[in-house]
Amino acid sequence: MKAIGVDLGGTNIKAAVVDNEKGIVEQVTTPTQAKLGKDHILNRIAETIGDLKKKYEIIGIGMGLPGMVSKDQTTVKYPPNLPGWTVVNAAEEITQRTGIVCRIENDANIAAIGSLHFGVGRNFDSFIMITLGTGVGGGIIIDRNIYKGTQGMAGELGHVIIDYHGPLSNSVTRGTVEAYLGQRFLSRFATDLITQNPSNELYEKFSNDFEKLEPIDLTNAAKEGNKLAIEILAKSGQRLGYAIINYVHMMDIRKIVVSGGVSKAGDFLFEPARDIVRKHMMEPFKEGFELVYEDLGNDSALLGAAGLAFDSFS
Amino acid sequence: MKAIGVDLGGTNIKAAVVDNEKGIVEQVTTPTQAKLGKDHILNRIAETIGDLKKKYEIIGIGMGLPGMVSKDQTTVKYPPNLPGWTVVNAAEEITQRTGIVCRIENDANIAAIGSLHFGVGRNFDSFIMITLGTGVGGGIIIDRNIYKGTQGMAGELGHVIIDYHGPLSNSVTRGTVEAYLGQRFLSRFATDLITQNPSNELYEKFSNDFEKLEPIDLTNAAKEGNKLAIEILAKSGQRLGYAIINYVHMMDIRKIVVSGGVSKAGDFLFEPARDIVRKHMMEPFKEGFELVYEDLGNDSALLGAAGLAFDSFS
Repeated sequence: MKAIGVDLGGTNIKAAVVDNEKGIVEQVTTPTQAKLGKDHILNRIAETIGDLKKKYEIIGIGMGLPGMVSKDQTTVKYPPNLPGWTVVNAAEEITQRTGIVCRIENDANIAAIGSLHFGVGRNFDSFIMITLGTGVGGGIIIDRNIYKGTQGMAGELGHVIIDYHGPLSNSVTRGTVEAYLGQRFLSRFATDLITQNPSNELYEKFSNDFEKLEPIDLTNAAKEGNKLAIEILAKSGQRLGYAIINYVHMMDIRKIVVSGGVSKAGDFLFEPARDIVRKHMMEPFKEGFELVYEDLGNDSALLGAAGLAFDSFS
Repeated sequence: MKAIGVDLGGTNIKAAVVDNEKGIVEQVTTPTQAKLGKDHILNRIAETIGDLKKKYEIIGIGMGLPGMVSKDQTTVKYPPNLPGWTVVNAAEEITQRTGIVCRIENDANIAAIGSLHFGVGRNFDSFIMITLGTGVGGGIIIDRNIYKGTQGMAGELGHVIIDYHGPLSNSVTRGTVEAYLGQRFLSRFATDLITQNPSNELYEKFSNDFEKLEPIDLTNAAKEGNKLAIEILAKSGQRLGYAIINYVHMMDIRKIVVSGGVSKAGDFLFEPARDIVRKHMMEPFKEGFELVYEDLGNDSALLGAAGLAFDSFS
């Protein structure tokens, strides 16, 4: 069984034919040319799919994109990085242009669906997926379905508060997970601590231009034994731990899957998170608790988008 | 249609015949005599029900009790205030003794089911119920069903963290909603502020014995225009607001129902909470948001227990 997965980003459109057992069979990438507007992009997606659909028997199309997606997985509202898009029934637009049924979902939920079909999520009926990237996103899988809430916007895990006195991430909420673990905020937190420790190697390396400091630099330094880098990642992991306690106490879902660039820090981040969970989560919730790393990498968006099609049309 | 609702507490067993349209038809109360042990209590419940069932046609029994209840709503684990109870299939024990089908649920979820069937929850398909009592409990209703999570323990809303540096409530978690709004903790917070303001009338009234200070005293003082009482309730309401943001950002359920003794403070608590929501909740979640007060009072446990029976057996 094959579906087409599409990953619509501000820079590139990626599309792939995905087999439900074998994974990606064929993949194409084309520039989004976002400035040329909505119809141009939708036409480009349709052209790309048109080439693929001639070669394979396709059951449907799934597409991941930024922004808020309706509960029925057809319509996106004001997606960031796609100028001129307002409220667009992208699923219908694509079906009209290709003759193939289509559903859409936001990037964070697509990552969770990808894990469910092709990643560590295969082992779990219910899990909470946290994506630690530029922002912190989330997707909640309950009994192998994405949980959307009453109006389609559930799972804003990055905007869960752990310290209401804490720093700002976006314009409205303080002390959210994203304000600590979003890539930019983690880098800023690291910059502060490194500046306070000018004898540390990281100071020498980045003090000319801290803008260049990324979480991966901390991970690499930690692997080389840099104690300050280890401390920065540990503190961030602890904050992740508090957020996870909130998710588990609310939803009683005990499998936590973490993906995204920052998660490459692995156990430098996860062990301190697990330690906070061991110390501060209510005892009865600990049975069966697991915090695991998702490693589908760059393919996860395409696999998840195809997974959405398998869920919707098979 | 009639069911029997039972409210099993450490002090009293209450039982009532409840009509799904008319509410409570007949009610009896008997001491729990908890020290005499599990079988004694179960026999007393059965006797009480036995008298009621002779007079009415009953579709089933629902019972609320403290403690963690299994996902299938039959079995309770180590209920507090009921010495000698370990893991007890109370539903089956009651059915064996009465010949009537039975389901059980914990007190917080029972309160939510009560609101769903007989209170403000009738207006909502999905809502989050917060009970502000000695502790802070919660129940989550999704599409008119209680949400139990993977192992039956979802909705520990009182144990959601809003400031991980904050005060302790129980032994394991800091800065939870309960640590601010649980009755004891709210009284302690009030005591601190009143002690810092010895010119306030509340100091004169309670400084001999702050143990006597209860949230209702703050509410009464606030109604009389006492600014310190208003400030204490406002600060507590703000904290409730941050917790509510967490619930909504996670679950996208936009109807919040608050019950329990502390909630009698009404808008002294709720308006500051709404204000925090207006300022700090993500914009798209605000559409349709409501924070309302549940006023089923002392009957809510019996009504909710009967509601559980209606849900399970009608």
